[in-house]
Amino acid sequence: MESIVLYYSPGACSLASHVLLRELGIKFEAVKVELTASLPESFRKINPKMRVPVLSIEGETITETPAIFTAISQLAPERKLLGRSNIEIVRTYEWLNWLSGTLHGQAFGGFVRPHRYVDDPALYPAVKAKGWKNIEDCFEKIESDLAGLHAVGDNFTVVDIFLYVFYRWANYGKDQIMDKYPKYTKLVTHLAKRKSVQEALEAEGIVSFLPKL
Amino acid sequence: MESIVLYYSPGACSLASHVLLRELGIKFEAVKVELTASLPESFRKINPKMRVPVLSIEGETITETPAIFTAISQLAPERKLLGRSNIEIVRTYEWLNWLSGTLHGQAFGGFVRPHRYVDDPALYPAVKAKGWKNIEDCFEKIESDLAGLHAVGDNFTVVDIFLYVFYRWANYGKDQIMDKYPKYTKLVTHLAKRKSVQEALEAEGIVSFLPKL
Repeated sequence: MESIVLYYSPGACSLASHVLLRELGIKFEAVKVELTASLPESFRKINPKMRVPVLSIEGETITETPAIFTAISQLAPERKLLGRSNIEIVRTYEWLNWLSGTLHGQAFGGFVRPHRYVDDPALYPAVKAKGWKNIEDCFEKIESDLAGLHAVGDNFTVVDIFLYVFYRWANYGKDQIMDKYPKYTKLVTHLAKRKSVQEALEAEGIVSFLPKL
Repeated sequence: MESIVLYYSPGACSLASHVLLRELGIKFEAVKVELTASLPESFRKINPKMRVPVLSIEGETITETPAIFTAISQLAPERKLLGRSNIEIVRTYEWLNWLSGTLHGQAFGGFVRPHRYVDDPALYPAVKAKGWKNIEDCFEKIESDLAGLHAVGDNFTVVDIFLYVFYRWANYGKDQIMDKYPKYTKLVTHLAKRKSVQEALEAEGIVSFLPKL
């Protein structure tokens, strides 16, 4: 068995990759990297992009959540974690790219990391305000697009886990968000019952920020 | 043969999907959507996200370039357009997510569409300036990461096409960019010799913005 190492920060988007590794029940090492204002400078040699998650597997260092999901899914092709048909796999990558680029990068990026979009700290509040509006727009789209307990087809895929992370963030930032998005809330509360999610939360030392299970 | 329709705007990131369809030599319809300040309101019924590209295939409407690349690649699995091994496929999705989210969404997004990040037009210049800095940072990373004539392994993949689009944009925005990025320039000038690229440029009525071939 190859050595697998996941670099994560508690509650960051790396939580999704952490859950997915636990979902497979395979042996891996989870290395915690403290993320406050930024990652420690020493992390640059592991990932020059200065981002978590990073997956190290068979001597390869992999970044970007959709790529890490792809690598983990390849370890257990029979689980079909990217979808059960060609079109489901396409839908999975469609979700992942939008969640990573638009919801995480643009919306949460503006809200939480305004310095990525302007240099002058005096402009941070304007970027943060627009970021929160973008988050709400994205959440409305998610609510509109969801049909059942899973984002893609009728089965659990990596998309469900990614959705869980962003719901948790928004719920942390503002109160009462769950009332506005009943379908999204149903998906994540269902997902949060999985052993893999509960184990990952416990290992990262964080709570779910979801309605009581 | 199923009916395939690609919605594109000349020179937009949809150019990459357009090239890929021509690479396969399959029959498809290319529908031009004018993109000036924004897409026409009538386009909302085709894609509520109001973005090109959109691929319509077998009654499915697919958005997000990495998902469209996945769908087109599924039409010709023997071409291995996503890579020739599991790790190459992972590297392809790593490149695609970073190019789509960080270079396109954050860097070019700030430079070309500052209204996505702030509401007040008085702040657009600050967002645009940071956007251009982010573009330069990304181009330096691309230059540093490239090893040969292809981004992933030793063969042509969808990543090469995506890289071509962003090089073309940056070259359009500023002069002399090619001198700073010789490896990137070599990749795109090599790529631009492909018949698929030349056909797509001609069909979209645009020029390459590359050094003379």
